Amino acid sequence: MTDIKASLITIGDELLIGQVIDTNSAWIARQLNGIGIPVVKRIAVGDVKEDIKAALDEELKHSRLVILTGGLGPTADDITKPFLYEYFNCRSVVNDEVLAHVKELFTRRNRPIQAVNLRQAEVPEGCTVLFNRVGTAPGMWLEKDGAVVISLPGVPFEMMGIMEQEVLPRVKALFSGNTILHRTIITAGEGESIVAERIKDIEESLPAAIRLAYLPSPGIVRLRLSTMGTDEAELTRSVQAAESKLVERLENIVVATEDIPMQHIVGKVLVSRNATVGFAESCTGGYLGHLLTQVPGSGTYFKGSLVTYSNRVKMSLLGVSPEVLAAETAISEKVATKMATEALRILDVDYAVSVTGILSPGGEESEDNPVGTVWMAVAGKEEVKTKRFRFHYDRAVNKEMAAQMALLMLWKFLNGKL
Amino acid sequence: MTDIKASLITIGDELLIGQVIDTNSAWIARQLNGIGIPVVKRIAVGDVKEDIKAALDEELKHSRLVILTGGLGPTADDITKPFLYEYFNCRSVVNDEVLAHVKELFTRRNRPIQAVNLRQAEVPEGCTVLFNRVGTAPGMWLEKDGAVVISLPGVPFEMMGIMEQEVLPRVKALFSGNTILHRTIITAGEGESIVAERIKDIEESLPAAIRLAYLPSPGIVRLRLSTMGTDEAELTRSVQAAESKLVERLENIVVATEDIPMQHIVGKVLVSRNATVGFAESCTGGYLGHLLTQVPGSGTYFKGSLVTYSNRVKMSLLGVSPEVLAAETAISEKVATKMATEALRILDVDYAVSVTGILSPGGEESEDNPVGTVWMAVAGKEEVKTKRFRFHYDRAVNKEMAAQMALLMLWKFLNGKL
Repeated sequence: MTDIKASLITIGDELLIGQVIDTNSAWIARQLNGIGIPVVKRIAVGDVKEDIKAALDEELKHSRLVILTGGLGPTADDITKPFLYEYFNCRSVVNDEVLAHVKELFTRRNRPIQAVNLRQAEVPEGCTVLFNRVGTAPGMWLEKDGAVVISLPGVPFEMMGIMEQEVLPRVKALFSGNTILHRTIITAGEGESIVAERIKDIEESLPAAIRLAYLPSPGIVRLRLSTMGTDEAELTRSVQAAESKLVERLENIVVATEDIPMQHIVGKVLVSRNATVGFAESCTGGYLGHLLTQVPGSGTYFKGSLVTYSNRVKMSLLGVSPEVLAAETAISEKVATKMATEALRILDVDYAVSVTGILSPGGEESEDNPVGTVWMAVAGKEEVKTKRFRFHYDRAVNKEMAAQMALLMLWKFLNGKL
Repeated sequence: MTDIKASLITIGDELLIGQVIDTNSAWIARQLNGIGIPVVKRIAVGDVKEDIKAALDEELKHSRLVILTGGLGPTADDITKPFLYEYFNCRSVVNDEVLAHVKELFTRRNRPIQAVNLRQAEVPEGCTVLFNRVGTAPGMWLEKDGAVVISLPGVPFEMMGIMEQEVLPRVKALFSGNTILHRTIITAGEGESIVAERIKDIEESLPAAIRLAYLPSPGIVRLRLSTMGTDEAELTRSVQAAESKLVERLENIVVATEDIPMQHIVGKVLVSRNATVGFAESCTGGYLGHLLTQVPGSGTYFKGSLVTYSNRVKMSLLGVSPEVLAAETAISEKVATKMATEALRILDVDYAVSVTGILSPGGEESEDNPVGTVWMAVAGKEEVKTKRFRFHYDRAVNKEMAAQMALLMLWKFLNGKL
């Protein structure tokens, strides 16, 4: 079986009115890719039986595996299970294992159990129950005309647990054969079109089975090579050859050859140097510390962040002088430098990065420092480097850009490229 | 025109392999809802012309408005424009205004311009060009058999700008008539099924035109009432009546009657009290400060956060005693209390919240403090309240839960409910 395709159908009005962002589909797609199954389509429909039916009918025309998520909660707006009874023309039965688990969950959490909670143990007769260790709604595996339809809860960590423990091993056993390979090269400092121009001849001579995609994000362009087939050794060889050519050509702007966020890239360098880092943040408000502490094990190199959002705290905690603030405002090279050197001292770290700027209207903007102006400094034991940026977007995007540029600046400093 | 429906098609392999999370669709859906147009389906397809065609054919069967996003970049993997030439059977023409804008953008940013960049000014002949002020790829408005097909770039802030400035005014003018109303009630502290049980009779007696949905998230259950029709006054009256009944019934757990995140809810209370706040964060790593500074104008009440990730910084900056750390570890009531009271003093604020805990394996976990244990304290000028939590999920979810619970604890403290 080497031509298996998958479709994802997410169910819930909240997706269609934009109240919730669908993070499940991306995660599921990555897991299926990992076992060689390409996702060809993702669909979101509302809590409407006819729409779920139409989408499932449509996808079963070309996909042998369809995963539904959502609509399995205990409340009246959750209609996936009634839909499944109708679609597979079966009645509901109580699954004893799930029933015992639901009761145990409520007892353990000391919460009173409602009749609707017990109904979570009802499943379509004949389905394979996919046990949910961390929630009350089990997943369900149903088959129809040689295709597999899987229904999972929409709560992300419940869905993830069932996928990892129950779905992926079964799917892999049933539909094995293909290998999908992706390689990602992360570049920083050049725009998408410049990168494309530099590698034009390599791109044009790539084997037909290899696709190259460009994924730009603030300050970064990711290049992704993708290929799929049955001969894993040959696929690996050809994609590695293409990757090597690209990395060699783009050497001066490559920051990583795996698809990991900037904070992981920086974390790896810090671990390899046995070095520590801290931040002094103003406009990023703690976001730099948040990003770095997303990385498990970051406690070995990240010591802390001094989020000095107000000028008074910049003075009292970091010793920024009132005279400098009055003469040059907080958005200045002098304040950025003082913030970084004081963070270095107070947090007792090898490197400190500071960020101070104005991300959206209504603060200290002026003709010299329009909205989007940000000063940053990186301090080591021997020297301090500073840089001024100007971002042109809204508050949230400007914050994201400032944080990415701060991490990139630290990476360049650590690698002698700043 | 009162039965207009919309579909969204997002284009890009990165969506199907899970490299990128689709945030655009939720945003677009909210905007369309705001002008009375329901989204009935969202589809994601890869960079494959046949798949884009199949999806567009399918959606045009039932939707009079289809918005495509993505695939408009300057590189070879971007195929939406070639697809549009074929689908609408037209040739490409250069739009002079876009051409001048692209040249000006590159000149302003001091970047060399490539031939591929200039090709961004090519559009299908006869389309309405939707000007992109912040990027090089324009949006395009095309019509076919009475339906409208709009193609927009996938870069979020570029898409948003074009939607706001070009698309929404035109769509509103063309398809007006319906009103869609959503009301959201945010509750905290009770599970979804308990909330449902408490309002069972109200839910069962809702008018047929009103739908009630439950949206659970860490510590929070949002109730959403939705209705759609042509008589805005009557819709408003009936949805408000339903809202009042629910709010009255759930009074003790309602934290807000609009769909805003916890940090906005807390921010509003702080503004109304003219009070200031600061944090001392360990395991949340700066995330609390990040959340609060997402709110525009938060500088009036948020002064800073002391992110003391390492125990050494807890001692040196917050005066946590080595003896307490040795005897009770950093995950203790005493350390949480000291962190909050010191943050209150150092940041010179009216209220301070501290968070210290262990979110994932590999740190200070023990039999007494298993993974997921978090201590929090809220300090005011007069008193300190503390609470111990235990979260059961992975590092990222535990961090999210800890931050939400900290904001909720602050909200309760401010309202005398803790």
